Amino acid sequence: MSLTAHEVHALKKAPSMEGVLPAFHERWSPRSFAAREVSAEALKKLFEAARWTASSYNEQPWRFIVGLRGDGTWEKIFAALGEFNKNWAKTAPVLILTAAHTRFSHNGTENRHALYDLGAASSYLTLEAAALGLAAHQMAGFDPEAARKAFGVPAEYLIGTVIALGYLGEPTALGDAGLIKSETAARARKPLDEIVFSEWDKAAGI
Amino acid sequence: MSLTAHEVHALKKAPSMEGVLPAFHERWSPRSFAAREVSAEALKKLFEAARWTASSYNEQPWRFIVGLRGDGTWEKIFAALGEFNKNWAKTAPVLILTAAHTRFSHNGTENRHALYDLGAASSYLTLEAAALGLAAHQMAGFDPEAARKAFGVPAEYLIGTVIALGYLGEPTALGDAGLIKSETAARARKPLDEIVFSEWDKAAGI
Repeated sequence: MSLTAHEVHALKKAPSMEGVLPAFHERWSPRSFAAREVSAEALKKLFEAARWTASSYNEQPWRFIVGLRGDGTWEKIFAALGEFNKNWAKTAPVLILTAAHTRFSHNGTENRHALYDLGAASSYLTLEAAALGLAAHQMAGFDPEAARKAFGVPAEYLIGTVIALGYLGEPTALGDAGLIKSETAARARKPLDEIVFSEWDKAAGI
Repeated sequence: MSLTAHEVHALKKAPSMEGVLPAFHERWSPRSFAAREVSAEALKKLFEAARWTASSYNEQPWRFIVGLRGDGTWEKIFAALGEFNKNWAKTAPVLILTAAHTRFSHNGTENRHALYDLGAASSYLTLEAAALGLAAHQMAGFDPEAARKAFGVPAEYLIGTVIALGYLGEPTALGDAGLIKSETAARARKPLDEIVFSEWDKAAGI
C-alpha cells in the first residue's frame, strides 16, 4: 500500500477537540520534503511566532542559525547530522540550528531554564509552520560539538536541536522501507492519565 | 492612570502579522487573576494541546501535577514558591508543577532534551490557554527541591516550572505599585535580527 503525501497528512492528524487550536492536532514531524523552497515571508512568520515566546526574566535566550540549501550554512548544519538523519534530511530545503544562552544578561548568573525556553520557542516555530502548511522536524540526532565547532558557538551557549523545514513530500520518495513505514504510521501519544496528576502517582482524572 | 483588565489585555497584545496564529500575539503572562474557577473541560483542552507536542524519540517526558485551590495539591505547590511570586500567585485558582523524566524509557540512557521537550509541552499548554481566553504565567521563582520533597519526585525527574493559571484579573487588585506597573507595561521582545542568524554573529536579515 503506498500512500500519497496528502493521504499521509490526513492520517497523521490527531482527532480534533472543540476549542483546541487545530494546529496542535495537525502538526507532525515528517521526513519526506518536497522539492519546493520556503519563502522569506514564510520564514519570517515562523520566527515572529517564536519571538513572542515567554521566557525566564524575559531573557529570550534562543538563537536560530538558518541555512537554505546551497548557502553554505545549510551544508555546515547538515554535516553535523547523524547518518540516519542525513539519509532523509537531505531533502529539506531549510535546516535550522537552535542554541540557548545559559547566562542571564542582566547579572551573568546561570539561567537554568535556558533549554526549557529554547524548547518553547522552537515549538512555537514548528506550530506556526503547521499553521502555514509547512512541515518541520526537530532532531536530537546530530553531533552538537561538531555544530559548535562549525559555527564557533561560545561555551556559554547550549546547542539544542536541528530543525528540518520545508513542504511535505511523497512518502515513497524516502526510498528506505523503514522510513516509509514510520512516515505512514498513525501518530501516538500517552493518554492524559499518564501525564496529568494530582499527586506524584495519582492521575488527575481530567 | 488605572487600567482595567480589558484595557491591559489590549495593551499587551503584540502587533499581529498576517498568517501568524493570533494566539502567539495574544498570549502574555499576567499576575492578576480574577475570582473565577477554571472548568475541568477547559483544563482538559490545555493538556490535550500539550499532549501532542513533539519530543525526542516520542518519549513525552513531561509530567504535570495540577492543583486547584483548596485541594491540598495547590497548597503544596504554593508553599514552594518564592515570596515575590507568592505575593501575586495567591489569586491564581490553578497551580501546575511541571517535571520531566531525564531517562529514555526504551533504554534507560540520558535524555538530554527532556527539559527542552518539557518547555515545548508547557508552551503549547499556555498558548492553548490564551486561545481559550485564559491567562497563564510560568514561574522559575520557586524552590525546586522543596517541590520535589513535597511530592516525592524521583531523582530521575527534573523539576521545571510552576504555572499559575486562571482568568485575567484587574491590575489594581495586585495592590503593590511595582506589580501594577509591570502588569500594565507593554510587552517587549528582541527584534528578529537579534535572534535569527545565518552565521553565529551574522544576522540573517529576515
